[in-house]
Amino acid sequence: MAATKDWKTIADEKARSVFDTIPKEWLLPESFMADVDETSTKDVTTVPRECGILTPDEVDITESYDATDLLPKIAAGQFSSTAVATAFCKRAAIAQQLTHCCTEMFFDEALNRAKFLDEYFANHKKPLGPLHGLPISLKDSFSYIGQQTTLGFVSFVERPPATFHSPLVQILLDLGAVLYVKTNIPQTLMTADSQNNIFGRTLNPRNLSLNAGGSSGGEGAIVAMRASLMGVGTDIGGSIRIPALCCGTFGFKPTASRIPYGGQAIPGRIGSPGVLAAAGPLTTSFRDMRLFMDTVIAKQPWLYDHSALHMPWRSVPEKQVLRIGVFPADPAFPLHPPVERAKRSALEKLKAAGHIVVEIPTAPSIEKANHEIMDYYTLDPKAKSFRNIKASGEPVIKSVAESPFLSKRSSPLTLDDLWEMNAIKSHYLKDWHKVFVDNQLDVIVGQAAETTAVPHDTFGNVPYTTLHNYMDYPALVIPYLQADKDVDVEDGFTSYKPYRAEAVDKAPISIQVAARTHFDEELLAAAATISEVLSK
Amino acid sequence: MAATKDWKTIADEKARSVFDTIPKEWLLPESFMADVDETSTKDVTTVPRECGILTPDEVDITESYDATDLLPKIAAGQFSSTAVATAFCKRAAIAQQLTHCCTEMFFDEALNRAKFLDEYFANHKKPLGPLHGLPISLKDSFSYIGQQTTLGFVSFVERPPATFHSPLVQILLDLGAVLYVKTNIPQTLMTADSQNNIFGRTLNPRNLSLNAGGSSGGEGAIVAMRASLMGVGTDIGGSIRIPALCCGTFGFKPTASRIPYGGQAIPGRIGSPGVLAAAGPLTTSFRDMRLFMDTVIAKQPWLYDHSALHMPWRSVPEKQVLRIGVFPADPAFPLHPPVERAKRSALEKLKAAGHIVVEIPTAPSIEKANHEIMDYYTLDPKAKSFRNIKASGEPVIKSVAESPFLSKRSSPLTLDDLWEMNAIKSHYLKDWHKVFVDNQLDVIVGQAAETTAVPHDTFGNVPYTTLHNYMDYPALVIPYLQADKDVDVEDGFTSYKPYRAEAVDKAPISIQVAARTHFDEELLAAAATISEVLSK
Repeated sequence: MAATKDWKTIADEKARSVFDTIPKEWLLPESFMADVDETSTKDVTTVPRECGILTPDEVDITESYDATDLLPKIAAGQFSSTAVATAFCKRAAIAQQLTHCCTEMFFDEALNRAKFLDEYFANHKKPLGPLHGLPISLKDSFSYIGQQTTLGFVSFVERPPATFHSPLVQILLDLGAVLYVKTNIPQTLMTADSQNNIFGRTLNPRNLSLNAGGSSGGEGAIVAMRASLMGVGTDIGGSIRIPALCCGTFGFKPTASRIPYGGQAIPGRIGSPGVLAAAGPLTTSFRDMRLFMDTVIAKQPWLYDHSALHMPWRSVPEKQVLRIGVFPADPAFPLHPPVERAKRSALEKLKAAGHIVVEIPTAPSIEKANHEIMDYYTLDPKAKSFRNIKASGEPVIKSVAESPFLSKRSSPLTLDDLWEMNAIKSHYLKDWHKVFVDNQLDVIVGQAAETTAVPHDTFGNVPYTTLHNYMDYPALVIPYLQADKDVDVEDGFTSYKPYRAEAVDKAPISIQVAARTHFDEELLAAAATISEVLSK
Repeated sequence: MAATKDWKTIADEKARSVFDTIPKEWLLPESFMADVDETSTKDVTTVPRECGILTPDEVDITESYDATDLLPKIAAGQFSSTAVATAFCKRAAIAQQLTHCCTEMFFDEALNRAKFLDEYFANHKKPLGPLHGLPISLKDSFSYIGQQTTLGFVSFVERPPATFHSPLVQILLDLGAVLYVKTNIPQTLMTADSQNNIFGRTLNPRNLSLNAGGSSGGEGAIVAMRASLMGVGTDIGGSIRIPALCCGTFGFKPTASRIPYGGQAIPGRIGSPGVLAAAGPLTTSFRDMRLFMDTVIAKQPWLYDHSALHMPWRSVPEKQVLRIGVFPADPAFPLHPPVERAKRSALEKLKAAGHIVVEIPTAPSIEKANHEIMDYYTLDPKAKSFRNIKASGEPVIKSVAESPFLSKRSSPLTLDDLWEMNAIKSHYLKDWHKVFVDNQLDVIVGQAAETTAVPHDTFGNVPYTTLHNYMDYPALVIPYLQADKDVDVEDGFTSYKPYRAEAVDKAPISIQVAARTHFDEELLAAAATISEVLSK
């Protein structure tokens, strides 16, 4: 038997082996690495185009298009898959050096795949599938043959590389995509600070001193860096929407199991009787979220994954006039000034565009849903997620130690508690159902969080995203405006989460749009209209 | 305070008050009541046409059509809703006297409703909806304004009548249906013997000494009596399919929540984290099951019931050649000779008709699913269902006392157990998914039970129906052949459930057809083809 290594050695060796997969010529010059740390307020999103590692064509490929625009150019032979993959691999390598967004990088394999696709294209005179040649980034939790899934647990480093693809990964490959990176997450996956003891902390590309969100924080950063046009995250409390809102990307948490979730490593225990996580996209444009949903579901995920819903994608027309429900912020969770401003501004724009905004002053309590979902998060009497930390001796990271989700319960919940929780949830769902039906709402529009991205380890509780996990409502975020220290002044604002105008200046803000369970199609149709209005 | 009555007095008074709602002129002459008891082998299905209570036209209305045929005749003005309602109310009153199939009869209200529909038709020159004038029977568990829901618990008799309609009831009314009876169920709803201490035992119309099935046993009996062409049952272990197979009707358990289940009284506790019950139809023809699904789902149940799936009905073409999976009977649960014969015969016919029968010798174990679902049935640490029995002092009925589901656990299950159970279930679902996908199966075809209807209180365990509740697979039964004591001999057959050829002679047999979760449309399309083949 080899001598047992301490956790730090194991973690450092793993991090080093990953870093070493970056080709030397893609390493940033020292000058670009100055002032790159978690205390810097630097915006690094312009580094890829300035650093000289990407050719002008590669800058064009990565900066001038969304996926919807790029794909026809690949399909027309204007860009080869190899050229596109090279551009995004380079950019991912740069993003990694600046933001620690990746856990695994498999550029060689990606370039081989791109070569295969180019040969396919040459031989067949047509693309392999609708995502032919599109590089897609994956949250670390997905299984990709030959790559490890450590989930940021040092105790998982000893696990062998995956021997199978997650069903969604297989679907993306069957659609023609190129997979090239897996992305960083927080220890336990249950905070909005994507930090762990192996890969470090993912920084926000727009301001390194702010959090990138979590748990799909690596996706938020890599998409904001345009080192990926389409990333796949998962969301059980906001883990797609929070990185999106922190980093200023689009993000969609569909109803659970519409996008196949199976075959992932999970931080805790299999068999939860609680809330379901959902997989979904982070993108640089609204329409790319729809592209993701359309193409993945067209492959019939229920043939790949026993847990995927057999629910073909329905064609839903966009309505001329939307009925938009709005509920006030919960007094327990006041909105920070920039978020409040963006919310009001968005609603004014939507009204001005002719849509009907319905105020719901008596909407069911957000605080109640937030309180209830905490119990679902802590249902495992064995607290497996914490055991996975302890197994290596690594320390608990700060945001986890301070998390309202994960602090060890004074006493475990019981089966009897679960019956009571389910009964409460059923009533809560009924109340929201009544709000939707009585008011004939298409969607509800509001904030996705009380804050923008904030200084590291201060994001804390996430009541406005967990609401939709508690109910399994599909929900998405649309970037809209940014914080402005001169407009969004601190004066007079108080909250359990302090507002620091200077610290979050220029941070992106987002609007959240949600609909009832399994109304994903209607949500995307309505939100497309809303996104269009907000973009004007 | 009134003096406390003993349970027997309460039960008898309730039963008497229900019986008294039958008009005197609809009471059967003594001659027809001779030999009507649970030891008689009499077939009473011919009594309605022989007893003189129905006019020849009423015999025609109730015997010559299925719902699909009857509705256009009402819509064309050939039959008034009043004539149709009168015919089925009379027939239900007769069925009640012979089989104890009802818990509540509200004939006056039904006839008022029919009058309203006739007036509507006269004024608008068109029907109110696609089920205009169709009498539909409801399992007792549904809430209907002004009627009690006692569920066969004496302790529930003190409860006031319902002040709201269940969402499904409201939908049926909005579709134009006439509701006239609620139907009998077993104490606890968890056995195949629909007996309770208030309304007695539902007898099998084709042979009174046999069980009518359960828990929707009243539905099985009333539909077999053609005192209802369309009944609504619920099924968490076979409670639609078992009455259907026992009484020789069609019965369909859809995927849970496709038909709205909300607003029902339940025998146990709200908030189960276990398997879901499903509502669905029992009918006299195959196509009437489809009529029920089509019309109910077209009303958008998700607008009525927060727990109903937002899953519009998809149009699915019938395939020319089906791929039909068949698994062998579990050695733990051998098929009685008539059931084995019917299964073999059905498969031969299907092969002869050009369909592909795929043998699945390694199908996941039925015994395992049956074992696992028992744990889900007994998840309530408070055992509320038993408390509802004890609350009145009434005795536990025999089939409940002997039920494998409901015998009190030696120790309650824990939350930890539930995690383990869910993990096991996930693997089991994955295994069946693989069977379907690898073999490209459209459906699986087999038996719905080891037996036909059997002498009262001997039906026992129901492994071949619970399989599909465990997995939430949609499943339906099609009547096919009947037991024949001269062909299905006892010799050489042994089982933990004794086979008595003489006792079950002429009992109906059924074939069960099932598909994967949410493949309800594909299941009905395939089973329509199968039903057609079997009918030839």
